Amino acid sequence: MNYKKLNGDEKILLSHGGGGRETAALIKDILFAEFYGPDSNIINYDNGQNQIKLLEDAAILDSPKKIAFTTDSFTVSPIFFKGGDIGKLSVAGTVNDLSVMGAKPLFLSLGLIIEEGFLIEDLKRIINSVVQEAKKSGVKIVTGDTKVVPVGKADGIFINTSGIGKVLYENISVYNITDGDVVIVSGDIGDHGSAVMSQRDGIDMDVAIESDCASLWDMIELVLRQGCRVNAIRDATRGGLAAVLNEWASAAGINIHIEENDIPIKDSVKGFCEFLGFEPYQLACEGRVVFAVKPGYANRVIEILRSHPSGKNAKVIGIVGDKNRGDSRFKGKVILRGIYGVDRLLDYPSGELLPRIC
Amino acid sequence: MNYKKLNGDEKILLSHGGGGRETAALIKDILFAEFYGPDSNIINYDNGQNQIKLLEDAAILDSPKKIAFTTDSFTVSPIFFKGGDIGKLSVAGTVNDLSVMGAKPLFLSLGLIIEEGFLIEDLKRIINSVVQEAKKSGVKIVTGDTKVVPVGKADGIFINTSGIGKVLYENISVYNITDGDVVIVSGDIGDHGSAVMSQRDGIDMDVAIESDCASLWDMIELVLRQGCRVNAIRDATRGGLAAVLNEWASAAGINIHIEENDIPIKDSVKGFCEFLGFEPYQLACEGRVVFAVKPGYANRVIEILRSHPSGKNAKVIGIVGDKNRGDSRFKGKVILRGIYGVDRLLDYPSGELLPRIC
Repeated sequence: MNYKKLNGDEKILLSHGGGGRETAALIKDILFAEFYGPDSNIINYDNGQNQIKLLEDAAILDSPKKIAFTTDSFTVSPIFFKGGDIGKLSVAGTVNDLSVMGAKPLFLSLGLIIEEGFLIEDLKRIINSVVQEAKKSGVKIVTGDTKVVPVGKADGIFINTSGIGKVLYENISVYNITDGDVVIVSGDIGDHGSAVMSQRDGIDMDVAIESDCASLWDMIELVLRQGCRVNAIRDATRGGLAAVLNEWASAAGINIHIEENDIPIKDSVKGFCEFLGFEPYQLACEGRVVFAVKPGYANRVIEILRSHPSGKNAKVIGIVGDKNRGDSRFKGKVILRGIYGVDRLLDYPSGELLPRIC
Repeated sequence: MNYKKLNGDEKILLSHGGGGRETAALIKDILFAEFYGPDSNIINYDNGQNQIKLLEDAAILDSPKKIAFTTDSFTVSPIFFKGGDIGKLSVAGTVNDLSVMGAKPLFLSLGLIIEEGFLIEDLKRIINSVVQEAKKSGVKIVTGDTKVVPVGKADGIFINTSGIGKVLYENISVYNITDGDVVIVSGDIGDHGSAVMSQRDGIDMDVAIESDCASLWDMIELVLRQGCRVNAIRDATRGGLAAVLNEWASAAGINIHIEENDIPIKDSVKGFCEFLGFEPYQLACEGRVVFAVKPGYANRVIEILRSHPSGKNAKVIGIVGDKNRGDSRFKGKVILRGIYGVDRLLDYPSGELLPRIC
């Protein structure tokens, strides 16, 4: 098939989503060319031992026995922000959702919903980020879909990624968290939320905060491979640390006691939150995970995390307790002990918070 | 966690996508309640032999050795149309993409992007369609994600589904199509495209056309199970029959000769196309597949298809040829022989066509 090559200064047209000649051009020129090299009909994986043919309706894959399967849609605004963009975020987000389940990320799907008029140049930049981020954890993009909607019916670009991972470490589950588990966070919290919000239309503050957006399989695997007994791991995205801890507390029927003073957080993020009235514990991270580890393993986990660039500010922030406490009114809570020793509840985030943070 | 129950006459708020209390309520009340029954934390599959725990970051699944993996985003407008809605379409579309690769659909992900202000009642209706359609092919929804964007930043609701299927029949591939293969279509073409377009704002014609939207694993499996030698199968969605045949012709380096008179198409669809100047062969179907079968198997395939409700108008429409023809200028084409015996090229769809048909 012959078609016109796409230039960077062109815009996305409705016809790029019509399923015909222009859609084929977009897929070949922008997507396949970046993912697999020009004129390729084949994706190699497993060091060339296996191949996937492109342009079929589904990718046929050799699968491990136990897989993890997850999906995430990304609607972040602005799409380009300090420390990343929607493309990087889409890969890291799904890679991390697999990683926290002890699964090595293998395959990704990529579903694009693009608004008519979107710049081809911006699309190329985003797709390039997707490719770069996928390389970091070795995940392959094996299937995709592109839709275009008329001007005003979307906002630039939305991306869905679904992922399949090979479960290497079983029994990592929120339901396993129990009394005495030590709660560890892998680094400073709230960077992503602050970076994105500070660059949003109508705020546009010049703060020196970069998103922490990163693929964390490497770091998580380092901890698990060394036999540290980890009960649960979760990435602190939408709703931030507050959402993770509250979900854990209610799912496992325990309380979590956190030392507020021990939560790692940058002064710039603290200042940004004070200025705008945000609760920093509710701000999204995109490169931080929370661990619940068996007592006795905390120091080793901290040591391993700090040996990795993404975990150099890892800290123990609290402890799990009260599973067997009789009074159910006092279970499923997150209790924050403040600087002066005063306890307060850290509640579920609620209300509008920060729309389109991821 | 306590939260307010959602009523049908309420609207989606930004906070439903914030990752906090309201998001949890939406997921539990509307999604989980429909999918798995009230207050369930567990999905059963394989007749209760296996379980998936909800509220983790990824579903952990027992996987067959060879899987098919696919993704599709749905942005159809209007979201409710004669014969279906965006929920039914999202399931059927991905089920069919797996089915045409010879893979039994097993697991689906469901990613929702919802516009603030969307009616909870409409969401419930759509989710109910998802559930009903998933039951038909026995596919399980095992992971999901919900995002909410502000008013005007999306159009009602967009849905992404990704799917995993177990490959039961290998070597079904567009690259296998070769000289002599018989081309069969499983039923009337263009129904979905006509139904959706006729109900779109600004057209709103009162034509008696229903979408053909349907999950086709049952029907496809019937053909494959009986040992019919099928080289390729594809569902004729965006770009319709014209796109499928052209993709086949260029991927396999062959010509496809079609008898125009044999293409099954309803008079109402023909009339609708003539009135609006559409090429019916470019109109999307959502419940029709095209087969390329080895010569000698065509009659059997037709017989089997016609025994199934979705295939009762199945017809042989043409034949594959010219793979070894010397002149490459004459390869990769679809040639339509008209009623009076005159040949014309059926080209790739091109230009705006019908945005948001799926």
